Amino acid sequence: MSLRCSVVLTTRLDTARIQAARRIIDPVFLHTPLYRCESLEPELGCAVSIKLETANPVRSFKGRGTELVASRLAEVGPPAVVCASAGNLGQALAWSGRGRGLDVTVVATRHATVAKLDRIRALGATLELVDGDHELARDRAAAIARQRGIRLFEDSLDIETCEGAATIGLELVDDPQSFDTVLVALGGGALATGVGHVLKELAPDVEVLCVQPLGAPAMTRSWHQRRVVTTESTNTIADGVAGRRPIPAVLDDLLVVADDAVLVRETSIIAGMRLLLDHAGLVAEPSAALGIAALLEDPDRFAGRHVVTVVCGSNVDATAYHRWVRPTRGRGW
Amino acid sequence: MSLRCSVVLTTRLDTARIQAARRIIDPVFLHTPLYRCESLEPELGCAVSIKLETANPVRSFKGRGTELVASRLAEVGPPAVVCASAGNLGQALAWSGRGRGLDVTVVATRHATVAKLDRIRALGATLELVDGDHELARDRAAAIARQRGIRLFEDSLDIETCEGAATIGLELVDDPQSFDTVLVALGGGALATGVGHVLKELAPDVEVLCVQPLGAPAMTRSWHQRRVVTTESTNTIADGVAGRRPIPAVLDDLLVVADDAVLVRETSIIAGMRLLLDHAGLVAEPSAALGIAALLEDPDRFAGRHVVTVVCGSNVDATAYHRWVRPTRGRGW
Repeated sequence: MSLRCSVVLTTRLDTARIQAARRIIDPVFLHTPLYRCESLEPELGCAVSIKLETANPVRSFKGRGTELVASRLAEVGPPAVVCASAGNLGQALAWSGRGRGLDVTVVATRHATVAKLDRIRALGATLELVDGDHELARDRAAAIARQRGIRLFEDSLDIETCEGAATIGLELVDDPQSFDTVLVALGGGALATGVGHVLKELAPDVEVLCVQPLGAPAMTRSWHQRRVVTTESTNTIADGVAGRRPIPAVLDDLLVVADDAVLVRETSIIAGMRLLLDHAGLVAEPSAALGIAALLEDPDRFAGRHVVTVVCGSNVDATAYHRWVRPTRGRGW
Repeated sequence: MSLRCSVVLTTRLDTARIQAARRIIDPVFLHTPLYRCESLEPELGCAVSIKLETANPVRSFKGRGTELVASRLAEVGPPAVVCASAGNLGQALAWSGRGRGLDVTVVATRHATVAKLDRIRALGATLELVDGDHELARDRAAAIARQRGIRLFEDSLDIETCEGAATIGLELVDDPQSFDTVLVALGGGALATGVGHVLKELAPDVEVLCVQPLGAPAMTRSWHQRRVVTTESTNTIADGVAGRRPIPAVLDDLLVVADDAVLVRETSIIAGMRLLLDHAGLVAEPSAALGIAALLEDPDRFAGRHVVTVVCGSNVDATAYHRWVRPTRGRGW
């Protein structure tokens, strides 16, 4: 890793711009809790800190990025924007756009988490549903942007999404604690490349470990093969990271900043959500439990280390969530 | 209320000391999330903001106060301290004392929340259990302090507990949003008098509304009758506020700073916990759901207002919590 550190980072991100972003983003999304969570540690066998991105008006980290784009659109236009979203980006864009008088359209799959769709509508955005998966929603958002001549906002490709996520990295680096590993959910790659860029530039000894579900492995496979690998379908409850077509420019950045990318099973994601609820008092959506899932699957790898996991969202459908976390027989009922 | 504002506040608290306290308390307990939570609002009929005190190493606001006393003990001694606790104060004192090499003893009732007792032990404190309720634990802690010649740390009576809680008030006042009402859990009174003092001094138009369970009404009855009223017993799941013997000096302060004190039913506390979980993605222990319970019981009182409720703790036993929040028939199962 020290060899890698000695070279200048060649990603699309720029640390000075990320630092400047902190002055643009609504403070309600910044300086989120970061704390050691010892009650998780007996089950996980390593020191665990939580970076909590759920205690804000949209219950995910996505507001950091949508604040940047909405602020720029409010200044220089156009005053209308469309994005495809599994639900969290759309909710955050709706929130940031509403406060600035922007016309926001969100395209999502009909199979998305209902609570996310309800919140997008409640925040005043136009919601269009497609009969298909997230990649179809991406295609449809692009078509709408072309037809209407409005801004297409693309998660992970558009630099604001990465810069917003990267401000989490600044907060990790600012903390007086030192970490061995940062666990980040891997989907389109904005969170991983954003956080990873800052860490590799300012704290290069910290391992950046990306975690993706086995049921949606496109970006992880791409990272390992150093070329874009797509998949035919996805099959995971972690809706927030269920892409099939990695974006080449994002993969390029990820190859620079990630130390490793691992895949985890659905049962581990559920166990992770349950552990966060029962031992840390935290609601995590499936994508936000990927880090804990990785710790559960490979305890030897992390033994004796201090890891921080980014709990990146808590938007769940209540019914599904109760089913995931309800105690199984023999666990006290 | 404007008449009340024109007089100098005559409580045991001092705003300059509270401001100074922020420089002593570990930052992990400060500047906690404060955000509008619109997803709660359709059910509650008013604008609701959350002040979240659970995303820290001890999952309650109590660390703010224990940091103050532990810091002073580490400087001037004695190096040993004992407190009675329903579990949150003891856990926080254990945390603050461990970092400063203090000898911490916690006395609790044998019927306390098991997760709280486990955390007190895990943090290295000596835990002594009594066969009785919280008032017996208070008596026993006082006896230990006399016998061993160590510091007795008394919740709500000792000014550090009130000053620590009062730093929450500073954060509320610092926020650019304006609130009509602040809902605080009422137990011994540290939270209510601390937050109340700051609000009445710096934002006197904000209503300070204390909420206590019908099953543990001693301080609320005392406030209404303007004299100490004790009760024979308590009967509530809100263990964090289940006292029977209000402290006269704390009642005196509460009479100065509280605008009202109300009692809520157990069913409303449970409904509040469920609402916070299902609509806000937040785990609240019963005491931390008292504010939402008050909103549920008297929606007309709050219609059209902007309230902030302090979610003051999330330490629950997993088994009991799952029982409280599990969906009832007809709610999606």
